[in-house]
Amino acid sequence: MTLGMVGLGRMGANILRRAMRAGIAGAGFDRDAGAVAALVAEGAAGADSLEGLVAILDAPRTVWVMLPAGEATEAALRELHALLAPGDTIIEGGNSLYKDSMRRAAEARAKGLHYLDVGTSGGVWGLGRGYCLMIGGDAAAVQAHEALWRALSPGEGAAPPTGGRERRDPRPEAGFVHCGPSGAGHYCKMIHNGIEYGMMQAMAEGLDLLRRGPFPELPLPDVTEAWRRGSVVSSWLLDLTAQALALDPDLTEYGGVVSDSGEGRWTVDAAVEHAVPAPVLAAALFARFRSRGTENFADKALSAMRKGFGGHLEPKAPDA
Amino acid sequence: MTLGMVGLGRMGANILRRAMRAGIAGAGFDRDAGAVAALVAEGAAGADSLEGLVAILDAPRTVWVMLPAGEATEAALRELHALLAPGDTIIEGGNSLYKDSMRRAAEARAKGLHYLDVGTSGGVWGLGRGYCLMIGGDAAAVQAHEALWRALSPGEGAAPPTGGRERRDPRPEAGFVHCGPSGAGHYCKMIHNGIEYGMMQAMAEGLDLLRRGPFPELPLPDVTEAWRRGSVVSSWLLDLTAQALALDPDLTEYGGVVSDSGEGRWTVDAAVEHAVPAPVLAAALFARFRSRGTENFADKALSAMRKGFGGHLEPKAPDA
Amino acid sequence: MTLGMVGLGRMGANILRRAMRAGIAGAGFDRDAGAVAALVAEGAAGADSLEGLVAILDAPRTVWVMLPAGEATEAALRELHALLAPGDTIIEGGNSLYKDSMRRAAEARAKGLHYLDVGTSGGVWGLGRGYCLMIGGDAAAVQAHEALWRALSPGEGAAPPTGGRERRDPRPEAGFVHCGPSGAGHYCKMIHNGIEYGMMQAMAEGLDLLRRGPFPELPLPDVTEAWRRGSVVSSWLLDLTAQALALDPDLTEYGGVVSDSGEGRWTVDAAVEHAVPAPVLAAALFARFRSRGTENFADKALSAMRKGFGGHLEPKAPDA
Amino acid sequence: MTLGMVGLGRMGANILRRAMRAGIAGAGFDRDAGAVAALVAEGAAGADSLEGLVAILDAPRTVWVMLPAGEATEAALRELHALLAPGDTIIEGGNSLYKDSMRRAAEARAKGLHYLDVGTSGGVWGLGRGYCLMIGGDAAAVQAHEALWRALSPGEGAAPPTGGRERRDPRPEAGFVHCGPSGAGHYCKMIHNGIEYGMMQAMAEGLDLLRRGPFPELPLPDVTEAWRRGSVVSSWLLDLTAQALALDPDLTEYGGVVSDSGEGRWTVDAAVEHAVPAPVLAAALFARFRSRGTENFADKALSAMRKGFGGHLEPKAPDA
Repeated sequence: MTLGMVGLGRMGANILRRAMRAGIAGAGFDRDAGAVAALVAEGAAGADSLEGLVAILDAPRTVWVMLPAGEATEAALRELHALLAPGDTIIEGGNSLYKDSMRRAAEARAKGLHYLDVGTSGGVWGLGRGYCLMIGGDAAAVQAHEALWRALSPGEGAAPPTGGRERRDPRPEAGFVHCGPSGAGHYCKMIHNGIEYGMMQAMAEGLDLLRRGPFPELPLPDVTEAWRRGSVVSSWLLDLTAQALALDPDLTEYGGVVSDSGEGRWTVDAAVEHAVPAPVLAAALFARFRSRGTENFADKALSAMRKGFGGHLEPKAPDA
Repeated sequence: MTLGMVGLGRMGANILRRAMRAGIAGAGFDRDAGAVAALVAEGAAGADSLEGLVAILDAPRTVWVMLPAGEATEAALRELHALLAPGDTIIEGGNSLYKDSMRRAAEARAKGLHYLDVGTSGGVWGLGRGYCLMIGGDAAAVQAHEALWRALSPGEGAAPPTGGRERRDPRPEAGFVHCGPSGAGHYCKMIHNGIEYGMMQAMAEGLDLLRRGPFPELPLPDVTEAWRRGSVVSSWLLDLTAQALALDPDLTEYGGVVSDSGEGRWTVDAAVEHAVPAPVLAAALFARFRSRGTENFADKALSAMRKGFGGHLEPKAPDA
Repeated sequence: MTLGMVGLGRMGANILRRAMRAGIAGAGFDRDAGAVAALVAEGAAGADSLEGLVAILDAPRTVWVMLPAGEATEAALRELHALLAPGDTIIEGGNSLYKDSMRRAAEARAKGLHYLDVGTSGGVWGLGRGYCLMIGGDAAAVQAHEALWRALSPGEGAAPPTGGRERRDPRPEAGFVHCGPSGAGHYCKMIHNGIEYGMMQAMAEGLDLLRRGPFPELPLPDVTEAWRRGSVVSSWLLDLTAQALALDPDLTEYGGVVSDSGEGRWTVDAAVEHAVPAPVLAAALFARFRSRGTENFADKALSAMRKGFGGHLEPKAPDA
Repeated sequence: MTLGMVGLGRMGANILRRAMRAGIAGAGFDRDAGAVAALVAEGAAGADSLEGLVAILDAPRTVWVMLPAGEATEAALRELHALLAPGDTIIEGGNSLYKDSMRRAAEARAKGLHYLDVGTSGGVWGLGRGYCLMIGGDAAAVQAHEALWRALSPGEGAAPPTGGRERRDPRPEAGFVHCGPSGAGHYCKMIHNGIEYGMMQAMAEGLDLLRRGPFPELPLPDVTEAWRRGSVVSSWLLDLTAQALALDPDLTEYGGVVSDSGEGRWTVDAAVEHAVPAPVLAAALFARFRSRGTENFADKALSAMRKGFGGHLEPKAPDA
């Protein structure tokens, strides 16, 4: 198998690199010729069009689409449907909405193609640490690409074993999981990111309380460093927090305007749609919205009501 | 009975005025001689000290303390305990914590005094509309001051009757209520204010969604004006909102830095202490904290984590 | 004009009745022949099919669709598009999603029809009190039906005037408002209901804190009755609360399983889509989800983690 | 130094054991003679009273109090103040409120005693993994017990090093940290637990969304196992979750009634007191309150209002 990668941005390029390092042949296409050239220099085959990429690959082909969710992904899939042949496999690894993946899988199946939606966690660290892969689609297509999942995932040694899994599917212990039918991979990734939002916000609120509480001199880099050992909040997010604080205890490098991706929003949408209470996940999302400070009409309305019933005049500028 | 008022700020002065307009003799003391003179000009007896005020009143005396909650109230009560005689009554109408009222009532009782804690709602409108009074303390002392409550409260005509109250206490229909033992008055007032916070925040979020949603040209003064008639959200807070928007549709007059009183905080403390979930009341309080924008360390921590796992660089200034 | 009503459920029938009481001729259709007969007995023209209803009306026709949101409404609109003629007007007054109204208006316009989306608040009280109407669509069509809005809305006398509106649109003072283009009516109604959810939950949490706090004997029917006069939380929702408590102080009649309509959910979806923080509105929705108690897997997961790190064994049944 | 332990419950006994395994002489007292005997069998000196324990120790003594927070701890401290001599050190390691620790430290100092408040995380795993220690008090007393902290903490090897700490305090890299003056240790532990609550609730809500979303057959034991490798939510809490699900995928063993300790509540109290928004930490606490299901008056109030304005009759029993 040659893995054909569509989209050689940071994620796509590194996934291809990690596969190649494990001995899987690689080929790549990106609209940016420089990105292609870089991978070619590392031993991949390169193409200057989707058509060219498909031509390079031997049937049955495996094409991994790693593009921004939405229109870019949609366009590439449409084009691939015309280029690929029955029996070929499309892997869609972007941060797509699971409902899109369900629809796209049905469209692919109608063309005789296999379609796997693969939620991919690992970010800039994935090349070295491996990627956690959440896969949706037919069991046979998942099975047929087991070598790929094993090449990309962190592997058994990345975490101590969990007791009692002797009779369970061994694959998740390497860091990849077949979540279920099409869409289930992206659904799991979406929920994963929702949890991530909540855990991050919990940590952020705690740090804020350390800094603005009764002991303003608390050495945050040291407290978080100590928590990394033996405490209940030990986590990769804590590791990253301790790292950031070690280098910049006041986090002066950061502006405090926090972006959000589609997945955090979709998680709240799913909670609403399925009537599952998710107060923490929603609060974490709203905190990010609030961080932008672009508008404070709601606050002004509160002040207006307060003036109305109590004659309270409130300051126009933040109080110290 | 002569009502002796301690503290002739906006609330104390207007309560005294409303009582006098109903034919109750009034006397007042304030550290500000001008405030005393103003009430004397309206027919009250004036005093230039607490001792002087007590001397004016005939036994059994009724002294209403209407001072800022906390030390000012505490000091006045201590002094009154030395000046008053058994059988006299202290009414404490400030925004005191109910636990303080429970303690203070016990201290007053030890001196042979009656003690009533009276949560008082009405703000700048109370002089004309009347005050809603939530009273804690002994039934006999409440009963002994019924004329006072009737003078101050809005009266039966202020709202249409509620069906099915024929065999219930008729007093609440005038706008005052004996809530229970000492502290119960201020507890009810505290919860009342907690509800107020939640209702205000619900309104504020809705207005924000009207203004920043898909129809940015929505005529907010008109929408809120229409809601005042026939809709489920009809309320005094809506009246005040519609009024503010009629005069200033963009609420440019307001800075959006929203103060909070002790009572909003105490309500959340009570929820925590009594293990009662109060997500809306807490969220409303936190929104006010957030409105101050004095610190965004929590947001910076989120950005630092995001950079750590994903290499995301976020803007330092708010995005538009 | 004859108002043709499609759907003679409680809302549709009462809207038709209120219009007829104001002197507007009425006609109605419902799949339930009994519902039609009841209105005919009150002077309306009756039809046993949509086609029949359209045939009764003189051009230009006005047909008000008052059916459950979703498929029922969609089907009636499709059928009406085939039956009506250019220049006719469709009023859609159900609890529809504003995005559906935007699409439907465009479809109607393509047929030469006028289309007004009318968010309608008033419930079982509307017949007597009047309905608050939030209208989206072309100004001319809104204008052409002014007599209808005036007949249905509560009228100027339903609330005291708001100062400073002298140069503003006078129509909202009767209880109806032209919110903007198609969809704006239902968007305003949706936000109205979101605010309603938040205000209700604020009230509910406050009552819970009264009942489970340090003064369990608080007379809730009396406290809420007193609040109706002179307090900041005076509102129709408080009136209804005081009424319910007067008849049933422990609310034993109610099971505590709280339904939610689409509009509460859509409000949170809109907050997510437009990046507007809405913590109170979301918390209110989640509280309703939680009220159903159908599943407590999240709670079990917490217990499992607690056992994992601390060896805590927790009770299987609720503790008292 | 001999470490004198007061309270040989699970935490106290294991802390003493871990110290002894590192070569520190140990002595212990507990009201339960069997608990003392067990430690004596492992080489500790035993005492049948606080007085006896103090008598065993050579001056300057170090006594670690590890009792339930509140009255038990308070009583032991009072007694120790009478038994110990100037220059002795009290270590208080329970889950005490930081304000109590501030007061107690001042009381101890007045007797010439050293006082260290030590927030201790590690639970049932601490004996083997080591304890994360958050220490408040005078630097000299912290320094004097460095061997003890090193014996108890997990040690440098328990986590990979954090870059950029070369010029920072090396002690946190072993898992203990001097947080600041008296009270700072317990304050850090409290905030740590607050973060823990938030992270747990984020995980719990995510699991709930996996289970009740569009893919009810998702293999939760496998998904969480895969997340342990390479994903952003990797954490000890995730390890424990995956472990629990491996053994019991439906968590049938757990009742879903979640306890809360003082520290989760105090964290919200601190947020309120210091005006720090903490929506996630508060929501996590309220979710635990809600898990008890002991009362649903708030929900009943919602239903009562709904019936009032809309005539809605809601089911008494949960709907499926």
